[in-house]
Amino acid sequence: MRMYDIIEKKRDGGRLEYEEIRFFVEGYLKGAVPDYQAAALLMAIFLKGLDSRETADLTMAMADSGERLSLAGIEGIKVDKHSTGGVGDKTTLVLGPMVAACGVPVAKMSGRGLGHTGGTIDKLESIPGFKTEIPIEKFTAGVKETGIAIAGQTANLAPADKKLYSLRDVTATVNSIPLIASSIMSKKIASGADRIVLDVKVGSGAFMKSLDEAVKLAEAMVGIGERVGKKTVALITGMDAPLGAAIGNSLEVIEAIETLKGNGPEDLEELCIELASVMLELAGKGQRSRCREMALESLASGKAFNKLLQLIESQGGDKGVADDYGKFKQPKFIKEVFSTGSGYIYSMKTDLLGKASVVLGAGRETKESAIDPSAGILLYKKTGMRVEKGEAIARLQTDQEERLEAAERMLTESLEISREAPRLKPVLLAEVDSSGVKLL
Amino acid sequence: MRMYDIIEKKRDGGRLEYEEIRFFVEGYLKGAVPDYQAAALLMAIFLKGLDSRETADLTMAMADSGERLSLAGIEGIKVDKHSTGGVGDKTTLVLGPMVAACGVPVAKMSGRGLGHTGGTIDKLESIPGFKTEIPIEKFTAGVKETGIAIAGQTANLAPADKKLYSLRDVTATVNSIPLIASSIMSKKIASGADRIVLDVKVGSGAFMKSLDEAVKLAEAMVGIGERVGKKTVALITGMDAPLGAAIGNSLEVIEAIETLKGNGPEDLEELCIELASVMLELAGKGQRSRCREMALESLASGKAFNKLLQLIESQGGDKGVADDYGKFKQPKFIKEVFSTGSGYIYSMKTDLLGKASVVLGAGRETKESAIDPSAGILLYKKTGMRVEKGEAIARLQTDQEERLEAAERMLTESLEISREAPRLKPVLLAEVDSSGVKLL
Repeated sequence: MRMYDIIEKKRDGGRLEYEEIRFFVEGYLKGAVPDYQAAALLMAIFLKGLDSRETADLTMAMADSGERLSLAGIEGIKVDKHSTGGVGDKTTLVLGPMVAACGVPVAKMSGRGLGHTGGTIDKLESIPGFKTEIPIEKFTAGVKETGIAIAGQTANLAPADKKLYSLRDVTATVNSIPLIASSIMSKKIASGADRIVLDVKVGSGAFMKSLDEAVKLAEAMVGIGERVGKKTVALITGMDAPLGAAIGNSLEVIEAIETLKGNGPEDLEELCIELASVMLELAGKGQRSRCREMALESLASGKAFNKLLQLIESQGGDKGVADDYGKFKQPKFIKEVFSTGSGYIYSMKTDLLGKASVVLGAGRETKESAIDPSAGILLYKKTGMRVEKGEAIARLQTDQEERLEAAERMLTESLEISREAPRLKPVLLAEVDSSGVKLL
Repeated sequence: MRMYDIIEKKRDGGRLEYEEIRFFVEGYLKGAVPDYQAAALLMAIFLKGLDSRETADLTMAMADSGERLSLAGIEGIKVDKHSTGGVGDKTTLVLGPMVAACGVPVAKMSGRGLGHTGGTIDKLESIPGFKTEIPIEKFTAGVKETGIAIAGQTANLAPADKKLYSLRDVTATVNSIPLIASSIMSKKIASGADRIVLDVKVGSGAFMKSLDEAVKLAEAMVGIGERVGKKTVALITGMDAPLGAAIGNSLEVIEAIETLKGNGPEDLEELCIELASVMLELAGKGQRSRCREMALESLASGKAFNKLLQLIESQGGDKGVADDYGKFKQPKFIKEVFSTGSGYIYSMKTDLLGKASVVLGAGRETKESAIDPSAGILLYKKTGMRVEKGEAIARLQTDQEERLEAAERMLTESLEISREAPRLKPVLLAEVDSSGVKLL
């Protein structure tokens, strides 16, 4: 088999065989296939596509390229959840404890922040003492004992995906539905999930900007799940505004705690209940409506909140933060931002808000940057709300005073204020499973 | 400017600006643009194309990437000729002397054999003593004194083209009309031509397999010439059978000498007269019909033959070969091949014949292989001729006896013998200039 022939075949719109895809992925990982040949193939794939069988083959080749985590020692059906990334998305911190409180094991490998979007691992690390880099034995033991563990991805999960992603990043081949779908699914499959729930974000703060694109990505991932025997359901959810009011690591943990206490913002609570219902259903806990009741009950009873406390304790964190937010690291500088006009907030450039939080220190500007856990933005006002000129609309937190001005400018720029009130879109837009797309 | 943005633009079907093309070509040559980004862009170009302005910009960026030969010191209009490569194509050896004999300076940089096709420089080097690696001063002095010089390309002519070609060769991006056109034209322009005549081959022995493809390539190159102010005319000529009867270096030189003596095969003579007429017309020697008369007269008078003798002498060769072919190196082994059936030669797999000659030693199997100047094939029979079973159809020459069997097998396999006589296509198929395509 020659890489040249594989490139040529895809270039001419051909369908790659299982063996050809494995040859490419394994060859690339071990260096037998050089970067330039991989880049040529990636561009040919970008422009000519992969069908559902090829996409599934690519997924499995990448999933098999490193360790595959076995969760067989943990009883029950392991359901994993993945979000395609948004601003202020702290759902895992809420629904993980909810699902675990309902008796379904949550063994979750999570990522760090990427670009303008945050990551669960960075958020958890804002809890003093919380450890996310834990050995696999401790991780599975945590799930067995408390029903939930959340850890950072080990380097050796789907290493071919990691290497290919780096190449895509510099060759303008990231934005391809089959490549994105196989990248996400390969990591979920390598981390041992039996079934998968996807939260595909769409809107100004998401990577997918149109519903149509988001549906296609969801369909591709559901199709992979179907082909490899890992039942997958995707919710398509709005990211035209941040989820909740908090952007930034400790701010988001606090908002998640408030949600578990029953005081959370409506959009966040609704999404968590919905995602938890789907996870519970996939875990075999009954019909969706029954699962929804269980999810609600886990919140109302305080069981989900208690599960979070157990999680924090089990991974070395100080669970006292849940009662005293003063135990989180505090920012050196806080600044309120005031509205420059009167009217309704008509829209938000949510990616710009995410970038403003990175400027304040909540995310990484380069791979090596350290994160300031207390940095971020707390929004007092969101899309659809009325503001008056001079009214406080948000609070900025940072340790770097000189960053405040730029962040304030970005925040102001991200808001469109209009005389007209906008028509608000719901958070839940569609659900995609193997039977098709259902608009919600 | 970022290479990423350039790749993305072409990926999405955009039109690259002059500055973007220069940035890519210059950056790639000096190593600032890595192979993998160049490979991604080449594949995007392969699949999305380049328009005529972009193709001309790419050509000039590559032509300017190294030295540009100045022929300003040589009086008259310098017309260069390029063939896209065929089997048995010794036209340069005939028409160079013809054109020079008509008073038009011939300052020709030629290439070596590539794959199954031969190269002028390898052919000339089969003449004992003939030097093709000569310093530029000696080259221009040769043109001034004798009216003709033919030398190998210096390494520093269009080095970006050379580097890009190597990358295309391993990333399945060779066969793209704008990339082929710009590669050829960049070298012609860098070697100082004022006007250019192209011989675009089409058929079983050529890189272009269909007339349609060949016309497109010719149009692309004529278009480049038009845009950069180097008037260009292309003839599209048949390569369904080798040109003449000889394949292999000294065999082809002998056939060229015979043609200059007036005893050449008809197809070769006809093509040389036609190409010479176009070159003379472009050099300002009058109407095409007048130029054709001049070309014929250069042959009939023996002036073209004498010009070849002067060329050989001026570049250190033994002109005695022209009267005594025994002065060429002789092959150690000669074998005749006999027809396995009776009928008409209906068609020839001409590329396979070319490969058979390489097996015998006439071409290079790897870049480092040495060439055997006496190796090759002399065809007694060609397409359209009648053969009887057991009749000698060709002669094989080589120094490696063990290669004879494989070459014989390839030769036999290359011939389709049929009861029916084929309809023979003419050698001249079409002419393309800035006014359009004229089928001949």
